[in-house]
Amino acid sequence: MSDIAIGIDIGGTNSRFGVVTSSGEVLKEARFPTKEYPKVEEFVEALSSKIKSVLKEFEGYTFKGIGVGAPNGNYFTGTIENAPNLIWEGFVPFVDLFKKFFDTPVILTNDANAAAIGEMMFGGAKKMKNFILITLGTGLGSGIVVNGDLLYGHDGFAGEMGHLFLYNGTGRKCGCGRRGCLETYASAQGIKRTMFELLTNETEESELRDIPYSQMTSEHIYEAAKKGDTLAKKAFDITGEYLGIKLADAVAFTSPETIFLYGGLAKAGDMILNPTRKYFDKYVLNVFRGKTSILYSDLREKHGAILGAAALVWKQRK
Amino acid sequence: MSDIAIGIDIGGTNSRFGVVTSSGEVLKEARFPTKEYPKVEEFVEALSSKIKSVLKEFEGYTFKGIGVGAPNGNYFTGTIENAPNLIWEGFVPFVDLFKKFFDTPVILTNDANAAAIGEMMFGGAKKMKNFILITLGTGLGSGIVVNGDLLYGHDGFAGEMGHLFLYNGTGRKCGCGRRGCLETYASAQGIKRTMFELLTNETEESELRDIPYSQMTSEHIYEAAKKGDTLAKKAFDITGEYLGIKLADAVAFTSPETIFLYGGLAKAGDMILNPTRKYFDKYVLNVFRGKTSILYSDLREKHGAILGAAALVWKQRK
Repeated sequence: MSDIAIGIDIGGTNSRFGVVTSSGEVLKEARFPTKEYPKVEEFVEALSSKIKSVLKEFEGYTFKGIGVGAPNGNYFTGTIENAPNLIWEGFVPFVDLFKKFFDTPVILTNDANAAAIGEMMFGGAKKMKNFILITLGTGLGSGIVVNGDLLYGHDGFAGEMGHLFLYNGTGRKCGCGRRGCLETYASAQGIKRTMFELLTNETEESELRDIPYSQMTSEHIYEAAKKGDTLAKKAFDITGEYLGIKLADAVAFTSPETIFLYGGLAKAGDMILNPTRKYFDKYVLNVFRGKTSILYSDLREKHGAILGAAALVWKQRK
Repeated sequence: MSDIAIGIDIGGTNSRFGVVTSSGEVLKEARFPTKEYPKVEEFVEALSSKIKSVLKEFEGYTFKGIGVGAPNGNYFTGTIENAPNLIWEGFVPFVDLFKKFFDTPVILTNDANAAAIGEMMFGGAKKMKNFILITLGTGLGSGIVVNGDLLYGHDGFAGEMGHLFLYNGTGRKCGCGRRGCLETYASAQGIKRTMFELLTNETEESELRDIPYSQMTSEHIYEAAKKGDTLAKKAFDITGEYLGIKLADAVAFTSPETIFLYGGLAKAGDMILNPTRKYFDKYVLNVFRGKTSILYSDLREKHGAILGAAALVWKQRK
């Protein structure tokens, strides 16, 4: 029988984990309610217990380890550090906690890095040495691969593209405390803020005028845009411009051969991809023009986060 | 006797080369007038002849190769590609041209990358795996080192930080054809443009009001600032803010342990370093605060470009 690893995707509300083979097949998948465990120790204990019971179904397989993707997960230290979207505060020694229950390697990284590793091992980046994966969820995350390796920087935190300045410390307030960060413009939350700016500044009719701020999601904007809502379509165009501008900057930094879009907002498909490409082409520096493609992630519909987390175990072993 | 390499620094007006030992000692240095050779073939032939005559003085040494730092030099292809500041147009097969005259390895990279390799081999970055070197000359160049290797990207052109957008396609016109690039604000030319903006918008007296645009250099601004000229001092402060903001972005990308400032404008010393640090600290993302130092390059007064170019040969051999 073949080798298996556990891939865990830690989310603020729910976490998910899966049993993954070294060829990237997800044999089983399950959810786990993060928010019900205000103490991380109890979360890890309960999750470990659930994982162990699931592993019993795979007794013929060789269990190789656990990979975890989590917001602000630090690959170097194995700690989750001040993650704004998680219930656990400060520095959480996540790997050490897990090691109390498992004898196998436990590897942690941030969620976007995990997705990038998944893309490299099982997705569209299989033969690529230089690419960037952008997660467009509530916020904007990024995993940057350079010379075939994930870019961690000297402290494990490289690749925080959501906090590049689109505007220099001015503009929309960000969860990080500063203003003008890319993720306040290009993300599910960002497009909602843009939508409200349009509802405020423009006069066109829009069905979205009936939804309060607290209720509106990027799905509402997507559905309205599909039906031809002028302002909703404009919100996607503007979001593509914001993203395209900063992807042009990203190319001037690391010159990737491809940039993959991944995550909730990327599900809007061509609605977000087309304007992103259009403005990227407009803004990119001449020497790079026509060299970098912008694609959907291959994994966006296929348990991407779990695959990516499990891939940490396989990547580790190669 | 020890090994030697030739390091060549190609400039628009003059080029320089030096005889360098593997421990970074420059045994001899000479200038060569780039502009007098409109045909690159004649330039390479004449320069090769001069290098050969110099090498005769070092007959006891083992000659290991030639490293060249040039604007838009491509490490992968050995060509200089559309360098705006050089007299030779289009794609110049620089390495191939040199190989007609030398049997040794000839290695080309861009000037900022060469300086970064020099810093890593012989300067302040000796033990560093992740750092960035910024050249503040007429324009702004960058060499980015990640996991101990220069970041080249998929096409050899990564690290064009001078062409990050400080403003998104608006603002000052750049030599690249776009508007708002960092080097139009943070460079010797950039501070001059800022100085003229101040002379235009403010009313304070300044000795710089007597110098026409075509005559003013960053040295004039430096000298005036040293004498206490309010607007000149303000120009340095603003330039430090421009640079500090984008260095904060750079840290969110690659999380270097140090950023080195190198080149003509960096000679202004604390006048540029202090505001750069001040605004960097103000703008950097929380998780990186206090982790990245901004320093002068160790090599800025020590034939840095030649050392860096020669270091290509030693780096190659390790």
